[in-house]
Amino acid sequence: MTRLFNEPAAFADELVAGFVAANRGRVRAVHGGVARATRSEPGTVALVVGGGSGHYPAFGGLVGAGLAHGAAMGNLFASPSTQQVLSVARAAEHGGGVLLSYGNYAGDVLNFDAAEAQLIAEGIPTRTVRVTDDISSASVAEKHRRRGIAGDLVVFKVAGAAAEAGYELDEVVRVATLANERTRSFGVAFTGCTLPGAAEPLFTVPEGRMALGLGIHGEPGIGETDIPTADGLAEIFVEALLGELPDGVDAPAGQRVVVVLNGLGSVKYEELYVVYGGIARRLEEAGVEIVEPEVGEFCTSFDMAGASLTLVWLDEELETLWAAPADAPGYRKGSVPPREAVEADPEPQTSSEAVMAPASEGSRRAAARVTAALDATAAVIDAHVDELGRIDAVAGDGDHGIGMQRGATAAAVAARDAHDAGAGAGTVLVRAADAWSDRAGGTSGALWGVMLRALGTRIGDEVAPDAATLALGAREALDGIRAYGKAEVGDKTMVDAIVPFVEVLETRVAAGDELADAWDAASAAATEAAAATAELLPRMGRARPHAERSLGTPDAGAHSFGLVVTAAAAALSRKDTVR
Amino acid sequence: MTRLFNEPAAFADELVAGFVAANRGRVRAVHGGVARATRSEPGTVALVVGGGSGHYPAFGGLVGAGLAHGAAMGNLFASPSTQQVLSVARAAEHGGGVLLSYGNYAGDVLNFDAAEAQLIAEGIPTRTVRVTDDISSASVAEKHRRRGIAGDLVVFKVAGAAAEAGYELDEVVRVATLANERTRSFGVAFTGCTLPGAAEPLFTVPEGRMALGLGIHGEPGIGETDIPTADGLAEIFVEALLGELPDGVDAPAGQRVVVVLNGLGSVKYEELYVVYGGIARRLEEAGVEIVEPEVGEFCTSFDMAGASLTLVWLDEELETLWAAPADAPGYRKGSVPPREAVEADPEPQTSSEAVMAPASEGSRRAAARVTAALDATAAVIDAHVDELGRIDAVAGDGDHGIGMQRGATAAAVAARDAHDAGAGAGTVLVRAADAWSDRAGGTSGALWGVMLRALGTRIGDEVAPDAATLALGAREALDGIRAYGKAEVGDKTMVDAIVPFVEVLETRVAAGDELADAWDAASAAATEAAAATAELLPRMGRARPHAERSLGTPDAGAHSFGLVVTAAAAALSRKDTVR
Repeated sequence: MTRLFNEPAAFADELVAGFVAANRGRVRAVHGGVARATRSEPGTVALVVGGGSGHYPAFGGLVGAGLAHGAAMGNLFASPSTQQVLSVARAAEHGGGVLLSYGNYAGDVLNFDAAEAQLIAEGIPTRTVRVTDDISSASVAEKHRRRGIAGDLVVFKVAGAAAEAGYELDEVVRVATLANERTRSFGVAFTGCTLPGAAEPLFTVPEGRMALGLGIHGEPGIGETDIPTADGLAEIFVEALLGELPDGVDAPAGQRVVVVLNGLGSVKYEELYVVYGGIARRLEEAGVEIVEPEVGEFCTSFDMAGASLTLVWLDEELETLWAAPADAPGYRKGSVPPREAVEADPEPQTSSEAVMAPASEGSRRAAARVTAALDATAAVIDAHVDELGRIDAVAGDGDHGIGMQRGATAAAVAARDAHDAGAGAGTVLVRAADAWSDRAGGTSGALWGVMLRALGTRIGDEVAPDAATLALGAREALDGIRAYGKAEVGDKTMVDAIVPFVEVLETRVAAGDELADAWDAASAAATEAAAATAELLPRMGRARPHAERSLGTPDAGAHSFGLVVTAAAAALSRKDTVR
Repeated sequence: MTRLFNEPAAFADELVAGFVAANRGRVRAVHGGVARATRSEPGTVALVVGGGSGHYPAFGGLVGAGLAHGAAMGNLFASPSTQQVLSVARAAEHGGGVLLSYGNYAGDVLNFDAAEAQLIAEGIPTRTVRVTDDISSASVAEKHRRRGIAGDLVVFKVAGAAAEAGYELDEVVRVATLANERTRSFGVAFTGCTLPGAAEPLFTVPEGRMALGLGIHGEPGIGETDIPTADGLAEIFVEALLGELPDGVDAPAGQRVVVVLNGLGSVKYEELYVVYGGIARRLEEAGVEIVEPEVGEFCTSFDMAGASLTLVWLDEELETLWAAPADAPGYRKGSVPPREAVEADPEPQTSSEAVMAPASEGSRRAAARVTAALDATAAVIDAHVDELGRIDAVAGDGDHGIGMQRGATAAAVAARDAHDAGAGAGTVLVRAADAWSDRAGGTSGALWGVMLRALGTRIGDEVAPDAATLALGAREALDGIRAYGKAEVGDKTMVDAIVPFVEVLETRVAAGDELADAWDAASAAATEAAAATAELLPRMGRARPHAERSLGTPDAGAHSFGLVVTAAAAALSRKDTVR
């Protein structure tokens, strides 16, 4: 379990700060993560990686010469926000465009895709290669849905070496895509990790048993067996991976293959080396030639007890790129000559420093109510943070409470600042939206950002919003959520609560109800739907692979939505400012 | 706990094999450990390190350019044997003499010292610098008794860089000694590791508590406290280490200091970075300038949950040597240009290939009895291996059973081979002695080697030994044990059983008893003494620091001695060959 932390909600920020302090001259802190502290050749491609924290050296530890140029470092096991990815990419790019590469998880896809669109809009050529090496997470027919695990290192290494060698962006994409297609992993686990401050491990495996194919955040595996001997595990690993050769590889014999044996945290080096001996023998028996293998910790999951084997079926180009030197805090290979330090950046700008739009008196009065509603939201989330974590842990990774807390708190602070600076209701909501998604990260952070932004954009700063405008804003928020994710009512996600909320709100407002009354009725409908969802959650269990997680996987989002809209009701019932 | 293994007794060998397979081109296997696979400058000093296995990257993972030239890799948590150290040193040296460096544990001291004497006798200039960085293991007045923990890395790094820079042996000794004097560590632990195949962890710390100063093999600490926050631990670490400045450092302010924050196994990188942030702040507040810090795993203890902080108070020379590049499988720094591969060695020679001394018919008949006695010894140890481990775990690290099993089995095989090749009783015993100490390693392995060798040397190969010669040999074996270690009767070690054994044997033989009868009576005395010792052991507990361990620390040696001499009695009762 994780024992050493200060404030659990501050853990991710503190680990980034400590990581940067320990690696001065090699990485520098930028908003949302880290970038190289050393200069890159102007005009070459920048490789920007990222994901949730808790997987060191993935992702920040892989920033350095011959590897990544920047890493967006999300909250624990939660995707970085769109703003984090954007900020890191802007700091890391140096004239040759950006390759975004990361493990294929819904929250990451959502935020990196949004960042990609924004970078392209800013005139920075940007492409994406997702890592999908975990063969247990989806069938070969659905390879694109597979999760990324230790294969991250391989794809990043190949892409980073190609960028270093001066490949154009399209060519870096080509080799990174090939590396991903030629890389397959299979993992096992014995115990789950316990996140900082959590009372329970994310998952458990029965004593003496080993879970097959279980994901690095505790996503469901494909089976369970008694703990085998070291040789028995070598057999399981090799059999699984020789059972699915990539396109272009007809038989193992005669192939040149990189082997990466990865420990997830507390399966230690000595055990890994004993297992490696068995793996090497079996691969050699199959006629495979092992090239520059790695045995160690490359993609961890705090102190989870588990391991994975990765095979990379090389061609000549991939072998050259794999063999190229690299020098990152968490991965070094070969000989990289010292590099010049990058010029110190000016202080990073955040959007809250932008000029405030002018607002009407009515909109500013409404802004005070919005701010109060967001204060109430932060307070109710604070009071329910453990409960949300517990509900989420039934089917997810248990971080919903902490993510909501970070998001709601940041949104309340941002709203207060904007209000104090004279902002109207629309701007207050948009600022709150950005702060929420930026600080919460992950999927639900992004979704709350989408909702608040849609609402704020509809309301604007020109007039005090009326009930019909608010109902329209709520509908547009729902549309945004649906456009972003893919969940429908019945998937046991926040959509289960939002849909009845919006429908009741629209109906009551159309029928001429006061906003406060309509909102109360809508909140009641949302709460009722959330309760039904929460009741079903334990039965849904860990039914779906994490790669689908987002709106398609059961979580505590319906419950937290119900809490938020109920908490906001009090602020809205003050009819003098919001009618 | 350690879950992945094949045969627990084969674990150490298999991990070396896997380690070498995974790092081909960088390290090569030699008898007893590994040496660099790359060529070193002829005439420069060879740094040979070593210790028990289970601490990766210590010790094999620290062999490479800018670091060690070879590592003797002992059994799990047990010193390498004298033969292992010798063999590695012979393979690693390249004309400039040898520096032996290792953590200050009794078994290591015993075996490395014996190897040093032998190397010097062979004409290879050899010196020793022991690492004694753990401030909790003895008072400042007894600094020389302190254990070595993560400070190993620092002393090895400085010595390795000096060797690489062409320093003469005396100069390498000087800077390594200075590095050790300037290096201080303090560790904490939350849980112990469980060795492969063991049913119980080596030690436990109560839930929610943290042991202060507990050693990497579970040696007793100096206190216990509730688990602090990350900042609280940073405070404990910094306070402890600023409380004992090395000679030549008057105050922290203005000093340049290397910081090594070491995880023992399952305190992971994220936690370490959070703690590091607090350490760096406190050191900076004290006016210390941090130089090239390291945060990671440098001296582990399987998956033990714990961490240690090391500070190195630099001078200009130490800073240059710390900053120099290094490229070992488990530690890389800076940029080391590629190196030429070393010429493949011829197959290593073992002493059993030496020419057999001529033996009399009588001695060869006695050799058959000796061989039978060693077979019986191996069998009785096999049958009691778990029991010996359990008794040893009361005050030691629980490896006595497995060590005895490896030693006794190897001794029986070597004896059989020598007998089949026509050896006399003396040579059979000497071969058995070497095999036992070589395969068992650790302290008890070395001591059994001493005993059997003394006995074999006394008996010789010229005539069939009589009872008086055997009694004299037993007395010399006891003298050897006493000369080697420092234990006396009452220390609850094997000496408690050997002394009555020898005394009864001498008395009965002098009184004219047949050897078999005298031996039986002596065995009974030994067994009785062993039982009394075993009964006292739980009350002795973990009374003494591990640095003193050897003959001065309670262990299961008395019990196993009683078992062995009793098992040997049957072979000796066949009066036709040994009178």
